[in-house]
Amino acid sequence: EEVAALLELKAKYKDLTGEDPAPTNASKKNFKRSAAAKTQDQKFQLKNPKGMRDYGPEKMAVRELVFKRIVEVFKRHGAVTIDTPVMELKETLTGKYGEDSKLIYDLADQGGELLALRYDLTVPFARYVAMNSIKQIKRYHIARVYRRDQPSVTTGRYREFYQCDIDIAGQFNGKMMPDAECVKIVTEVLDGLKLGDYVVKVNNRKLLDGIFAVCGVPEASFRAICSAVDKLDKQPWNEVKAEMVDEKGLPAESADRIGEYVQLRAGTGANFSMPNADLIARLKSIEELYANPMAKEGIDEMEKLLDYCRMMNCEHRVSFDCSLARGLDYYTGVIYEAVFVGKRVGSVAGGGRYDNLVGMFDAKGRKVPCVGVSLGVERLFTIMEEQAKEAGETFRETATQVLVASGQGMDKERLRYCTRLWEAQIGAVTSFKLKPRLLDQFQQCETEQIPLCLVLGPDELERGVVKLRVMSTREEIEVPDAEMEAVVRAKLAEL
Amino acid sequence: EEVAALLELKAKYKDLTGEDPAPTNASKKNFKRSAAAKTQDQKFQLKNPKGMRDYGPEKMAVRELVFKRIVEVFKRHGAVTIDTPVMELKETLTGKYGEDSKLIYDLADQGGELLALRYDLTVPFARYVAMNSIKQIKRYHIARVYRRDQPSVTTGRYREFYQCDIDIAGQFNGKMMPDAECVKIVTEVLDGLKLGDYVVKVNNRKLLDGIFAVCGVPEASFRAICSAVDKLDKQPWNEVKAEMVDEKGLPAESADRIGEYVQLRAGTGANFSMPNADLIARLKSIEELYANPMAKEGIDEMEKLLDYCRMMNCEHRVSFDCSLARGLDYYTGVIYEAVFVGKRVGSVAGGGRYDNLVGMFDAKGRKVPCVGVSLGVERLFTIMEEQAKEAGETFRETATQVLVASGQGMDKERLRYCTRLWEAQIGAVTSFKLKPRLLDQFQQCETEQIPLCLVLGPDELERGVVKLRVMSTREEIEVPDAEMEAVVRAKLAEL
Repeated sequence: EEVAALLELKAKYKDLTGEDPAPTNASKKNFKRSAAAKTQDQKFQLKNPKGMRDYGPEKMAVRELVFKRIVEVFKRHGAVTIDTPVMELKETLTGKYGEDSKLIYDLADQGGELLALRYDLTVPFARYVAMNSIKQIKRYHIARVYRRDQPSVTTGRYREFYQCDIDIAGQFNGKMMPDAECVKIVTEVLDGLKLGDYVVKVNNRKLLDGIFAVCGVPEASFRAICSAVDKLDKQPWNEVKAEMVDEKGLPAESADRIGEYVQLRAGTGANFSMPNADLIARLKSIEELYANPMAKEGIDEMEKLLDYCRMMNCEHRVSFDCSLARGLDYYTGVIYEAVFVGKRVGSVAGGGRYDNLVGMFDAKGRKVPCVGVSLGVERLFTIMEEQAKEAGETFRETATQVLVASGQGMDKERLRYCTRLWEAQIGAVTSFKLKPRLLDQFQQCETEQIPLCLVLGPDELERGVVKLRVMSTREEIEVPDAEMEAVVRAKLAEL
Repeated sequence: EEVAALLELKAKYKDLTGEDPAPTNASKKNFKRSAAAKTQDQKFQLKNPKGMRDYGPEKMAVRELVFKRIVEVFKRHGAVTIDTPVMELKETLTGKYGEDSKLIYDLADQGGELLALRYDLTVPFARYVAMNSIKQIKRYHIARVYRRDQPSVTTGRYREFYQCDIDIAGQFNGKMMPDAECVKIVTEVLDGLKLGDYVVKVNNRKLLDGIFAVCGVPEASFRAICSAVDKLDKQPWNEVKAEMVDEKGLPAESADRIGEYVQLRAGTGANFSMPNADLIARLKSIEELYANPMAKEGIDEMEKLLDYCRMMNCEHRVSFDCSLARGLDYYTGVIYEAVFVGKRVGSVAGGGRYDNLVGMFDAKGRKVPCVGVSLGVERLFTIMEEQAKEAGETFRETATQVLVASGQGMDKERLRYCTRLWEAQIGAVTSFKLKPRLLDQFQQCETEQIPLCLVLGPDELERGVVKLRVMSTREEIEVPDAEMEAVVRAKLAEL
């Protein structure tokens, strides 16, 4: 009976506090903290979680602009959009990210399912396609993902950041058509943002596997050697070779032969000594390589990809680079990576073909081949902000077109004119002060880049007119009251 | 030495799996699960977390449309937007939600700070204002929030859902101006969405407190009695009275007197027996009430609020309803709630003034008064979807304007024409099949509501023309190749 009473008390306590009365180590810490907080007069630590940040109005303005331009491109290519929960069942994410699984944010076990925050948008997409038995879809998804990585201000690495993905799922006999469209989409986005010269590096996992095979790498080591090759854009060849030989036990001769292959790259313009088509021809001419079925398939796919890119006017942006490997395990064919020329920001887009991921979620293992690309929008924001700063430009935080002012109080009149403007679909604000000073109101127009100021005065109102001031020219005109909206609209069109 | 070796092994294991080898209860369960999964041939449970769901393309189209209209209104009122992390330090949320704190999602303690998912957007906003020492801001924030509530399909209650808030922070002597603007914003949004007749109920916590005081409620019971009053829209008076008397120990006479006050309501139209202004006059005429300083302040504020609403052409939508109480503790003045007339969907907007919340985050307790309103967008989505269903309408998922077709294969040619359209900012798709059937391509236009179909044929191309089919009229015209983009644009403008 005493036990029952205690259990009831415990349940009540839990209802009240949401906490178990039996303090675990973690909740002990909690109690200590709240005790400390109490002595500090109930104040709290004012900070964001480690590696996360608020976006203020100006950062949001940049973000909106970038997203708007990107979404325009996605929509132009006929994509739909979806959204998935920020959490997945823990087991949905298990076994998808290799070593990086330790970076996944787990939810506390509060009873019920074990959950974790999404690590990227690709695995939730594959889960969505499998769960809804979707046969084909071209979808984009813009959302934040979560990684318990070491944050770094200098490299702009955060624990919460946006991803912006477009993927094409489906089995099509027009092979490489979706793969090439992904390249085209990246070039349209980067061209549209006008952030400078860039290159879209492309390669193929099948070709890499073929190279590894002809160079004598045992199949079990393909992924490990591939991840060594992936470091070639940051490390010189001798370091990468050392990793292959010393760490991964590859014979030095094998490593040297791989080295010759993966240092082949092609492209258009001064940075390249060979056009993409010549590299295709050269690879085809290497008999031992082209005789390998995997390598042959990879090379033929690349030829097709480059053909389609030419049809889509973007081959001049493409560099066939045999050193491109990409970190993730799940790629099975074409891989991409876009980098700005001469900017030290890392890649601004990356992706590839992953034909087996959806099958991992299907009870019968039915595959839905996918190809997609992820835009590094956080880096794009940073570059936009830096360019604007250099040019001395600021991003407008509001869309206000008119400030309704008065030097005579007139709170109700000001609200009445705001209302007329709102009802005419024109952005308008007025001061919440009862008697704002006219100079302060003009100053607000300057600070917030509001182009027009409607100045109300008792005399004017009696005469049936209002005064409109164009802030950029300081021109002031008297407008008949009934024509107010029309004149404002006309002035806005002129600006 | 053996210990060191074991520790090293443990570290390696952790690097590999991201898990501690020492199984806790939770991870034991995990191991059991993955063992079970292995026997099922590595398959996973295909589901969303409890109470959460994916948004497919059609749901997203509705959502985009609603957000677009809402954001237009917010921007028209000069608001900026911000975003905050999906997580806050656990202690930021502690002590803000009363009994509902048990519904907060905690993150697992993986080392480092104790974190929790945001429960609403108001507390993160107050934290943001305090942390950045902001003196005034009008901001909107659209984002998802998380509550471990019992999900319910019938009432549309989910554990992850969108909130859409606009708040005005700042100390202004034009009292009630921001409060009235929030009402105006709600009416502009609801009018714009054209979802039917609605009422914005308004009341004031100061008036309620004054009523409680004159009816003999001890001050310590104000919040408890207020939360009983809050149930009046769902329960009859006698049940609410029973809660006050039996559960909360109020004398029956006090409850009866409260009952008389809180059943007063006013508004415009057939549903109301008294205009708002008459209720103001009536409350002022009740001597004992208007003599109470709190009640007087509340009544005067309501008079001012209704005045400003009249200036902003929205007073006819407003109902001064003394029974409106709102659940949250932190309101300190005007409170709002918008409901559709004759629809059983609950409130579609709610909010009020909260002058003390920011001060809870400031080391010196400096207050920044705030007022704001939260739109129940999930309910708005549902109503939009139901209305469209009744009207037999569907929401277009894509923005594709032209399908580039051919009965003759022509994969490269189709991509080339798509590219011309994309470069002319026109949305275009083509089949990823090498030889798609013409009928299938027309069918796709019908299904996806693509208005135009550009049909390529070898004969036409040789003659320097392309065929354009208008899907709605089945009209087919031959267009000179060089004029293709211009004609497509002209046809689109006609439709």
